[in-house]
Amino acid sequence: MALAAGARVQARALLRPWSRVLSAAPGRTPAAGGGGPGARCFGSPRVLVEPDPAAGMAVMKLRKPPVNSLSLELLTELVISLEKLENDKSFQGVIITSDSPGIFSAGLDLMEMCGRDPAHYAEYWKAVQELWLRLYLSHLVLICAVNGASPAGGCLLALSCDYRILADNPKYTIGLNETQLGIVAPFWFADTLVNTIGHRAAERALQLGLLFPPAEALQVGIVDQVVPEDQVQSTARSVMAQWLAVPGEKPGAGGPRQLWVLQGQQSHRPPQPDAPHETRGYSRQRAVCKSQPCHFQQQAALVLGPP
Amino acid sequence: MALAAGARVQARALLRPWSRVLSAAPGRTPAAGGGGPGARCFGSPRVLVEPDPAAGMAVMKLRKPPVNSLSLELLTELVISLEKLENDKSFQGVIITSDSPGIFSAGLDLMEMCGRDPAHYAEYWKAVQELWLRLYLSHLVLICAVNGASPAGGCLLALSCDYRILADNPKYTIGLNETQLGIVAPFWFADTLVNTIGHRAAERALQLGLLFPPAEALQVGIVDQVVPEDQVQSTARSVMAQWLAVPGEKPGAGGPRQLWVLQGQQSHRPPQPDAPHETRGYSRQRAVCKSQPCHFQQQAALVLGPP
Amino acid sequence: MALAAGARVQARALLRPWSRVLSAAPGRTPAAGGGGPGARCFGSPRVLVEPDPAAGMAVMKLRKPPVNSLSLELLTELVISLEKLENDKSFQGVIITSDSPGIFSAGLDLMEMCGRDPAHYAEYWKAVQELWLRLYLSHLVLICAVNGASPAGGCLLALSCDYRILADNPKYTIGLNETQLGIVAPFWFADTLVNTIGHRAAERALQLGLLFPPAEALQVGIVDQVVPEDQVQSTARSVMAQWLAVPGEKPGAGGPRQLWVLQGQQSHRPPQPDAPHETRGYSRQRAVCKSQPCHFQQQAALVLGPP
Repeated sequence: MALAAGARVQARALLRPWSRVLSAAPGRTPAAGGGGPGARCFGSPRVLVEPDPAAGMAVMKLRKPPVNSLSLELLTELVISLEKLENDKSFQGVIITSDSPGIFSAGLDLMEMCGRDPAHYAEYWKAVQELWLRLYLSHLVLICAVNGASPAGGCLLALSCDYRILADNPKYTIGLNETQLGIVAPFWFADTLVNTIGHRAAERALQLGLLFPPAEALQVGIVDQVVPEDQVQSTARSVMAQWLAVPGEKPGAGGPRQLWVLQGQQSHRPPQPDAPHETRGYSRQRAVCKSQPCHFQQQAALVLGPP
Repeated sequence: MALAAGARVQARALLRPWSRVLSAAPGRTPAAGGGGPGARCFGSPRVLVEPDPAAGMAVMKLRKPPVNSLSLELLTELVISLEKLENDKSFQGVIITSDSPGIFSAGLDLMEMCGRDPAHYAEYWKAVQELWLRLYLSHLVLICAVNGASPAGGCLLALSCDYRILADNPKYTIGLNETQLGIVAPFWFADTLVNTIGHRAAERALQLGLLFPPAEALQVGIVDQVVPEDQVQSTARSVMAQWLAVPGEKPGAGGPRQLWVLQGQQSHRPPQPDAPHETRGYSRQRAVCKSQPCHFQQQAALVLGPP
Repeated sequence: MALAAGARVQARALLRPWSRVLSAAPGRTPAAGGGGPGARCFGSPRVLVEPDPAAGMAVMKLRKPPVNSLSLELLTELVISLEKLENDKSFQGVIITSDSPGIFSAGLDLMEMCGRDPAHYAEYWKAVQELWLRLYLSHLVLICAVNGASPAGGCLLALSCDYRILADNPKYTIGLNETQLGIVAPFWFADTLVNTIGHRAAERALQLGLLFPPAEALQVGIVDQVVPEDQVQSTARSVMAQWLAVPGEKPGAGGPRQLWVLQGQQSHRPPQPDAPHETRGYSRQRAVCKSQPCHFQQQAALVLGPP
């Protein structure tokens, strides 16, 4: 499996010129069988991965000082790290957090969007979309431990996870504040916000470019929980344990963990800019279907005639 | 009308092998003209119908001990009972409740989904969909008096009604808890929940398979009202009176009560598994249009040219 | 620009017989360069426009006593007044309010929908839709100062603005109460309500024809703010200042203010009656894009291949 995953990364590298940036990335160190908090870390220059296979999860830390801006390199390394974890049956969940408490991520890297040629912009935006799709559609349970400010693209990163825990520090605001910068959030950023806080709240937040401090963030629903700063990581682990307790195939049980994505067809296609709002089907339901007796599959094939 | 309805049931019986299960069902006893709480009950082995034509409504009670599991027979009898009430102009509303307080319905009958042949699974799922469509699109006002636990399919039954009143007993939880059983709610179950409690709350509830006790159920919006256990039925009657006071043709006024379903075209087609989320148009608006002066119909035909 | 706008109105007049009703309307008086609260008012018989170019905004007052019912003439004058303001770069925002405190608008004019010929109904409904589309898609920031009762079509007018402030008077209720009149709100009225207060709350409000007094209106979210009656206008001005502070091209900066409408393609087409719910794309994001460095445009052209 690890081999196959490696081969797949290779194949992708041929097609994607930006994968060359990873030439310096250390290869994945397979986690020791027993695992546990003491398992060897791996990752890439900008993404630190701390595996805890005994708990069925890993912590993925953004480390691109000073502000974890989402450069092409960081985006690429995030996708590859996630892919590795997805291909390793030891892991059912990932906690995403920042290696630099105080700033979760400042969002997209403006340097990637100024003074470059159109091909670069296209490549960059492709990478942004790919990270979003990867996160949103991952079969892994993704808990976001937001341990710092999280504007714009940083907020999108958090919104693409299954659950968000924000450190209770008034400086740690979160939101899609693009309009305050004189720009506008792409429609898929906006849709992801609508899915999280509802249409009207999202409309207002987008129009005014609102950044929510913790109490407001909790109230509007852009995060699920606010905890004291020193409890963010431990809370993330507790929440992860709760999510991983939802029944499913246990690690090593044989076949791959099955994912039932609501509207799978739509979700696996990238959103189309000209698709009408709310038809792009970003919904998902991370749930597993035990192997044999699952006749719920039946329903997918049923079409009633007119009543 | 009763004849026509009977003929229709006959015709359907030819097409649907499972209607044979109803051969033992007592025929409908036409309600006495004056009606009132003392009107004769009718129904089928598993569905008790208590008509109250004076109030323009009937109470429909599930009676399939011990837990009102939704077997093929119960589903079929529910649909037929509903159809009878729909075809009788004495009735504008139905209260759905359980004849066994303590359990509203345990949901789909797992016995129907294990160790049977594929044709049976298809037949069973068709019946589940048919009940849901019938309820969701009924022109009758449907008030659900949830007088017991209501997991999974029991919850869907409640969600398909217009208004939900839950008895205030901590044991009476309600929710789509399929993932806790290692299975996954069909997309139309999920969509119905999204319509009721919103996207984000539904996403989390589905992923974790949450069952809400009364206070939480009210807060998240999966029920509309929580009342003491002994007031569930009386509250349902009060709410029904409020709904039936919305203007419309009175019983016996002549033409059939007109239903304006929002997005009628979509609603009357069964949902397609591959349709994108939120395009399946389950919305409805139970409202009537008095006969002549209703030029609101005009709007449906209007299409403006580009501004 | 003013000339061009005039010519455009002329051209439209040829196509629309109802524009003849405006023959008596005084021509637009160009606002004095410096502007300010003392700038000359203009408007038409039923719409009073008080420009305040120094603040970048105007106040538009409905004055069709006694109840500001939305007659064909009033609808037409509202559209034309809005068009004039949109074509004048001095204005970035409009406050919409009633010239007769106590009643914001009683909604559609029933006289237009009784005893007339089908062509008139079509013309009238076209005008209703046109106003709604104009408001909903306007690049101007629209703040609604609801200084009186606002049922049915009056509520739609308010819902089509970006922000709603309601005077705190228990008599000033707001809602789509069509079913209480025995009719039904057109689907685009309903959709606009769903976008504002969510699916379930809208469903119930539409089915029962609910009119919300101020406290309830705020709680359900049909208005954004409730203030004492004598502070409605001043609050509207403060809110407008906040919205206009979102960065964008300043008046007179050269090119036209750029509007990024979410799902622009859909929004600019009128809704189709047979389009499924939630696919009609009414969402919008009023945000501006500074001229050159806006490579966010890139994203619109991106389509990723399958992952």
